Amino acid sequence: MTTVQEKALAISKEKHGKLEIRSKVEINSMADLSVAYTPGVAAVCTAIAQNKDDVYEYTSKRNLVAVITDGSAVLGLGNIGPEAAIPVMEGKAILFKRFADVDAIPLSVNTQNVDEIVSHIAAFAPSFGGINLEDISAPRCFEVERRLKEILDIPVFHDDQHGTAIVVLAALYNALRVVNKSIDKINVVINGGGAAGLSIANMMLAAGVKNIKVVDKIGILCENDSSLPAHHREMAKKTNREKQMGTLQDAVKGADVFVGVSAPNALKKEWVSTMAEKSIVFAMANPTPEIFPEDAKEAGAYIVGTGRSDYPNQINNVLAFPGIFRGALDARAKDITLEMQLAAAKGLASIVTDEKISPDYILPNAFEPNVAKVVAQSVSNAVKK
Amino acid sequence: MTTVQEKALAISKEKHGKLEIRSKVEINSMADLSVAYTPGVAAVCTAIAQNKDDVYEYTSKRNLVAVITDGSAVLGLGNIGPEAAIPVMEGKAILFKRFADVDAIPLSVNTQNVDEIVSHIAAFAPSFGGINLEDISAPRCFEVERRLKEILDIPVFHDDQHGTAIVVLAALYNALRVVNKSIDKINVVINGGGAAGLSIANMMLAAGVKNIKVVDKIGILCENDSSLPAHHREMAKKTNREKQMGTLQDAVKGADVFVGVSAPNALKKEWVSTMAEKSIVFAMANPTPEIFPEDAKEAGAYIVGTGRSDYPNQINNVLAFPGIFRGALDARAKDITLEMQLAAAKGLASIVTDEKISPDYILPNAFEPNVAKVVAQSVSNAVKK
Repeated sequence: MTTVQEKALAISKEKHGKLEIRSKVEINSMADLSVAYTPGVAAVCTAIAQNKDDVYEYTSKRNLVAVITDGSAVLGLGNIGPEAAIPVMEGKAILFKRFADVDAIPLSVNTQNVDEIVSHIAAFAPSFGGINLEDISAPRCFEVERRLKEILDIPVFHDDQHGTAIVVLAALYNALRVVNKSIDKINVVINGGGAAGLSIANMMLAAGVKNIKVVDKIGILCENDSSLPAHHREMAKKTNREKQMGTLQDAVKGADVFVGVSAPNALKKEWVSTMAEKSIVFAMANPTPEIFPEDAKEAGAYIVGTGRSDYPNQINNVLAFPGIFRGALDARAKDITLEMQLAAAKGLASIVTDEKISPDYILPNAFEPNVAKVVAQSVSNAVKK
Repeated sequence: MTTVQEKALAISKEKHGKLEIRSKVEINSMADLSVAYTPGVAAVCTAIAQNKDDVYEYTSKRNLVAVITDGSAVLGLGNIGPEAAIPVMEGKAILFKRFADVDAIPLSVNTQNVDEIVSHIAAFAPSFGGINLEDISAPRCFEVERRLKEILDIPVFHDDQHGTAIVVLAALYNALRVVNKSIDKINVVINGGGAAGLSIANMMLAAGVKNIKVVDKIGILCENDSSLPAHHREMAKKTNREKQMGTLQDAVKGADVFVGVSAPNALKKEWVSTMAEKSIVFAMANPTPEIFPEDAKEAGAYIVGTGRSDYPNQINNVLAFPGIFRGALDARAKDITLEMQLAAAKGLASIVTDEKISPDYILPNAFEPNVAKVVAQSVSNAVKK
């Protein structure tokens, strides 16, 4: 076990979880009680009963996001169940608070049936200003999110998909500034056909990338492959127009960009050498990336990003999700639309100035001031009024 | 609108609800992030995946109670729906924290169908150490609670029923100390056949009261009355053994104790005069009681309690629920049993010493130190090991 893991266990055990509820109201007398609880509270209830929209004025709903999982795809640990997933949800919740003052509550649902998950989450929506889905396995996560977005009038966002895609797109925008290539001319390979990989592909298509190959364990996703599940076939149609079949090695030949959301050491050094000039490698498997930055650079990559904090260009969801919900909540958005997500990526990319940008600095550090603020502003500006 | 109501509205609007989430962990560097979130958190998840019981060691579950309503019977306001009920749930949540350091999260469910409520609440049970049901109308609340207690291995407690009953029983224990009557000899009239009234009746039966009449709008509950709904008929069988029929006025003649969980001004002064010697009147309709203390005393009542903080002997749930959950969580109880509830009432009553007890001091003030602590200790001692 690493030191970091030992520390994580020790802190969780000492504090029994990473968050608590705190009153914003002092209660030190019977008079305080009468205001915070009965009889005073009746006036607040009555106001909301008369105008339901006032729930956003008078209650925590306005700033409360539920971070919800079914425990089916937790980090790289797989289907470990609702209880074992709680520490990740708690971690996410405190990052929401730390980076964007969003109050977030971790919730684990004890079923992996899509209909049931949707029904249970929708049932408690009156309490929340937004829903952040987390660590739900593909392809169920697509259906859960799609249906909740249809049913609910509050933002629903599956961070493993869209949060990742937004940060990758921001990183791509800035990497292209550095290598001076145009987004509609590049060839992109995305290794990993899970929730993150497919969402990155969709986001890049929306951002104007024309040539994408998505590669999964069986090779390049191609609509001619009759063994593909429906969601992979659909993606193959949207991306692989030349119907190329082949391996990852085949796919990366001549590619400008490699995006890995797959497995440790999945990208061989000699394959990187076959990529285009000034190639960009985002190797985000965690903690061991598809290729280590020093190897990728030796093989000719010009810009390398990973998920790790101990290398330059960390591609980390924490750069996006706090600001995205901050912006959506502030604008009282009913959804987090594709436009808002593209705006988030652009906003995040804009934080890196022309003076500072370099092959080793395409994304801000999570602790730079204003990251969440700029993202939030970009997102709320993109809300359709 | 009263000053208290104006203040309640102003505070809720200024602060947008009464509670927030707070991190117990500082996050000021990438190193902190690695411990609180990935990769460190994976070790915590793995520990729980290997031993599910460790969820109580490593997460907020251990101290987290969901305060849940369907908005169907909110205070005296009735069926105002899930959104308008949130301020009450928030108020309850901050009292949990203030009085017993229990972290409680307000949740409103958007259905009033019993099967659905049970299913939705049970689905999120992995996250919680306990469930406090609140403001769910009778008789649905009985079924919701009964079924959740059957399904779940965490404490489930409908405070409007049992919290009220526990504080009333504590008040009764101490009132009987003052008037020197024996609990198995007294005649009790309970006015109000809702959730609170029926629970008070059950609790008193369990505590050894032999003679109880429950009175509802139609009069004394009597099993000969074929128009009674099932839950009222069942109560009539357990309480009104002489099968007396009649009005509230008839019921209180000669009674030692009147308990009102009904309506303003429901108990007439001249009826109090017909009660037994050293009669006890708990008039808990809020904010206007069944009879005001000065009137009840003038008519001959020896001890009078109300739900109000501006009269002596305030009978207030806040004396019980924080300590009850504190005790149940500390003992990691799987249920809040009748034995634990009786122990809570005895513990609460014991706080009033022989030196201090008087007709105007049968219950401690909520702000006296140790109230929740003594109740918690009594409750956890009563947990079957």
